[in-house]
Amino acid sequence: MATKYVDLSTVKFFMNAVQLVHTVLEKNTYQDHDPESVNLFLDAVKQFADKELFPYFKEMDEQPARYHKGCIEVHPQVEKMMKEGGAMGLIAAPFNYEDGGLQIPLLVNTAASYILDAANNHLPGYAGLTSGAAELIIEFGNETLKNQYTPKMLSGEWGGTMCLTEPQAGSSLSDIVTKATPDERGYYKISGQKIFISGGDHQYADNIVHLLLARIEGAPAGTKGISLFVVPKKRLDKNNKLVFNDVTTVADFQKMGQKGYCTTHLGFGDHDDCQGYLVGEANKGLHYMFLMMNGARIAVGRTASAIASGAYYASLEYANERPQGRKLASDGTKNLKQKQSLIVEHPDVRRMLLLQKAMVEGSMNLIFKAAKYHDLQHTSSEENEKHKYHSLLEMIIPVVKTYPSEAGIYSINNGLQVLGGYGFCSDFILQQYYRDIRICSIYEGTTGIQSQDLLGRKMMLNDGEGAQLLMAEITQTLNAASQIPGMEVWAKQLEEQLQRTQEVLNHLAPFAMKGDYERFLADASVFMEFFSLILVGWSWLEIGVVSKRALITGNNSHESSFYESKLDTLEYFFVYELPKTKGLAETLLHPSSVTIKKEKEFIT
Amino acid sequence: MATKYVDLSTVKFFMNAVQLVHTVLEKNTYQDHDPESVNLFLDAVKQFADKELFPYFKEMDEQPARYHKGCIEVHPQVEKMMKEGGAMGLIAAPFNYEDGGLQIPLLVNTAASYILDAANNHLPGYAGLTSGAAELIIEFGNETLKNQYTPKMLSGEWGGTMCLTEPQAGSSLSDIVTKATPDERGYYKISGQKIFISGGDHQYADNIVHLLLARIEGAPAGTKGISLFVVPKKRLDKNNKLVFNDVTTVADFQKMGQKGYCTTHLGFGDHDDCQGYLVGEANKGLHYMFLMMNGARIAVGRTASAIASGAYYASLEYANERPQGRKLASDGTKNLKQKQSLIVEHPDVRRMLLLQKAMVEGSMNLIFKAAKYHDLQHTSSEENEKHKYHSLLEMIIPVVKTYPSEAGIYSINNGLQVLGGYGFCSDFILQQYYRDIRICSIYEGTTGIQSQDLLGRKMMLNDGEGAQLLMAEITQTLNAASQIPGMEVWAKQLEEQLQRTQEVLNHLAPFAMKGDYERFLADASVFMEFFSLILVGWSWLEIGVVSKRALITGNNSHESSFYESKLDTLEYFFVYELPKTKGLAETLLHPSSVTIKKEKEFIT
Repeated sequence: MATKYVDLSTVKFFMNAVQLVHTVLEKNTYQDHDPESVNLFLDAVKQFADKELFPYFKEMDEQPARYHKGCIEVHPQVEKMMKEGGAMGLIAAPFNYEDGGLQIPLLVNTAASYILDAANNHLPGYAGLTSGAAELIIEFGNETLKNQYTPKMLSGEWGGTMCLTEPQAGSSLSDIVTKATPDERGYYKISGQKIFISGGDHQYADNIVHLLLARIEGAPAGTKGISLFVVPKKRLDKNNKLVFNDVTTVADFQKMGQKGYCTTHLGFGDHDDCQGYLVGEANKGLHYMFLMMNGARIAVGRTASAIASGAYYASLEYANERPQGRKLASDGTKNLKQKQSLIVEHPDVRRMLLLQKAMVEGSMNLIFKAAKYHDLQHTSSEENEKHKYHSLLEMIIPVVKTYPSEAGIYSINNGLQVLGGYGFCSDFILQQYYRDIRICSIYEGTTGIQSQDLLGRKMMLNDGEGAQLLMAEITQTLNAASQIPGMEVWAKQLEEQLQRTQEVLNHLAPFAMKGDYERFLADASVFMEFFSLILVGWSWLEIGVVSKRALITGNNSHESSFYESKLDTLEYFFVYELPKTKGLAETLLHPSSVTIKKEKEFIT
Repeated sequence: MATKYVDLSTVKFFMNAVQLVHTVLEKNTYQDHDPESVNLFLDAVKQFADKELFPYFKEMDEQPARYHKGCIEVHPQVEKMMKEGGAMGLIAAPFNYEDGGLQIPLLVNTAASYILDAANNHLPGYAGLTSGAAELIIEFGNETLKNQYTPKMLSGEWGGTMCLTEPQAGSSLSDIVTKATPDERGYYKISGQKIFISGGDHQYADNIVHLLLARIEGAPAGTKGISLFVVPKKRLDKNNKLVFNDVTTVADFQKMGQKGYCTTHLGFGDHDDCQGYLVGEANKGLHYMFLMMNGARIAVGRTASAIASGAYYASLEYANERPQGRKLASDGTKNLKQKQSLIVEHPDVRRMLLLQKAMVEGSMNLIFKAAKYHDLQHTSSEENEKHKYHSLLEMIIPVVKTYPSEAGIYSINNGLQVLGGYGFCSDFILQQYYRDIRICSIYEGTTGIQSQDLLGRKMMLNDGEGAQLLMAEITQTLNAASQIPGMEVWAKQLEEQLQRTQEVLNHLAPFAMKGDYERFLADASVFMEFFSLILVGWSWLEIGVVSKRALITGNNSHESSFYESKLDTLEYFFVYELPKTKGLAETLLHPSSVTIKKEKEFIT
């Protein structure tokens, strides 16, 4: 099995030198941390991942989580993740001290989680969802809920989930029907079915705390009538003992990948005895949930990029060890007396490796940037700074979630191809990465939904103010790049992309103005692909600026080959990936609307 | 489970009306067949596939072929495929009467096999490889070999394989080391190891006949010293009884997909008692093997396209049944009192369906065309006709193998996405198609190898004569399209693509002339993607011409919606897929050569 799954130097380089973590750590909230301490935190996380996550990656695929007699049985390492990880602060890290946290910036926490995800994507979700569920309680719940539930969640003794999806509704949350009936004793009686609940049940948690969306009787139709409840698997009775709360594990979903990360079907209130506790105000459930959604979407993008990182290093290791074939001589023949080449020397293999590196690292840096925006939003004391970083985060979030998920599939597909026939075989790990990553473009809003969000909401945010703020940020990088010898050419190319974006938006916006939203959004997924390439191009330009400066000034902490390899990868991205915007723009500008359903006709 | 896996009307339409099977059936060789009889043959094959293949598709994935006590145990349906299929002529169909065949054109046989592959891609390979192995014996073996081995192969009692790959050599056949030592008793003693042998062993064949590449002692180095042998698992003794021939099944390969189609590791001559019988002349083994290779590559492309066909209909069926979400009104809101829409009505879902249809049918027609070229090559009485069709086949074969394999992954990826979370679940079939197809871009020469063949050999074939012949064929379709109202615009677009191709070749060819083959071929895979889009665009234009004519003349055998749907899909391909050539051309024309290894530096 491969031995490397992430490049810790690169993680630290992006966090420290590209996203400038010290500017975040200067904020009051984070005053107890400094660049040295957060780097040591990453080292500890890497050690934990090396020891407790990575060695079990293949095994968790081969021994899937399974429904057995009303419970889900998961791999024993889930307990390590939750309890040892919990003790290390891996669940509590981003929370404030007063809530039992370590008050660590999301940027640092994202870097740490990236390492965990890359090591074994079947495990961190148990901790991550518990953290997300606790966050909802801490942000919007009352003191009782907070005191009763969150300490044991943050320590990893109890698990947490998000219960949104229902069988009949899928992505359409307007249509959920799980009922909450007020009871005079101060709680709500919950009844309904939830599906696709990650980490919904397992033998290593004494309790699981579900954050559940339901409709209180008489609430308005659609998303405005949805409330958020804490619904524990076991509730606390008056003696503070855990007792049955009528939450049943109906079944699990067996899946193509992420088999160690259980996906469950839960029933609530089959015996009319399921208590739920309202979080915040009635009918604001979806609003609360969506305030947490940016974090969840960063996490999905991060997981996807990290899975692709594991695959990249596995294929790189193979390419550096496997001899096969020979180079052609200048007369087009091969010299058979020559030893076989290592396959890393073949340009086509090198292309597949650079492709992976470009997607993995370009997306990693963009994900870290989103986390930084989040931190700056939450720690800014000035309202307009807060607003600025909030808008910037909103603008990039659909891409941060989607690009790693979609390009990650493509990236791993190339990693698998590097191994040839072995890539398809179960003895090698590429096929597992290939299967695992496939869920990411479905989690937390599919690519189609992210694309509608990007084009339909974000590009139009505050009448285009969001887009302008983002353009200003990109322009800063362009200006920096234009002043560095050797970087101007890439700056110019990216600048052209911004013009192309404007052209595309000028073509599409009038449909929205005319009220033809169907036409406006019909090609949103194509726009997503287009705009993602531009944002990742920006990410690479930013990496390039820092790398090139380090090489020029000699003021650097890495070997020069580290920076040169970054610049090679930037070149790969700008030569092989970014030009794809041309064809995508042609599609977006085309008058055809063949994907809009004509009344009488269906696809055959 | 989905109920449809292929559209028989479309298969027949491409065979009859687009590839004009009657022009092939007019040839002497096929005089006993007519369009009616070959359509009846397809009907019979479809019935067989409905009954014996499709119902076992999921089960064969869930009960993989497995090594057990020195033998491979496969699903019982393998016996049906071989024996009932054999009795129907599914192995013997393309052979001449004198060899026990039905003398059916490859075009018809390809259409039939497409149906089988779409129904269950785990089964037809057992028959297909047996047919391929028998073909080698019939073409190049002596009468004794022919009489001893082929009758039971064509009836399906015995299996057949191709044994090329060895552990240390992979795709590099120059490096195979399996030894053949001449024995005075007229045979050769074989010793060596072969891996990745499809259908290499199973409990339903009384014997397996391996067509094996080995090196006779003292033979020249490299590919010029490779000979072809018949090496049966059991040899015939002097009483014509089957006895042990020292071929052992060492292990099997467990894989991500195609789990019912066994992949084996075979050992030859562990006890110094393995007899091999030379086929044809010594040292010409690779030459013989490659004369069969076009057929094998058509078969891989066909399998890939057919797997994508199964996935397409499964996702279409889901989209036509699953309600979810609502259309936006002209003020951008949703009317919650409206019933949910079927997801097929959402433009983004329709895009994913059209994408699949465009790739599946566009490639199917191109594959049928390759088979037709093969038939015309083999039945032409005039040398220059023969040469023409041989050249045309050679020109398109790398694309025929590669495009369905690569685009098929992308196509099924979109099919899976149509199902959302269910697409990732084992209860639904999309995830299986997604896993199964992944091997196709590795089989019979990886995409990298096909791409080098396309750019390095085929585009330069006979000093460009091959490319000219192909351009002349495409131009015929362009001319036909230009004369049909509504088709000119697509004809014009495709014509521009031909100019773009010329521009790219003008840029690349000088590298070859200078002897810089590494640079010339460095981006061969990008060229493959580029040129594939153009050939499939041509395929769609051809389909469009026939469809539009049928609508205009009213002289048609299908509902008009059948043709309109073809024209919609053509439009999809020309608006969403073909423009991708722009970015690819920009990459190909770029002066960068970042994928060529610099001496001191490896990718980190």
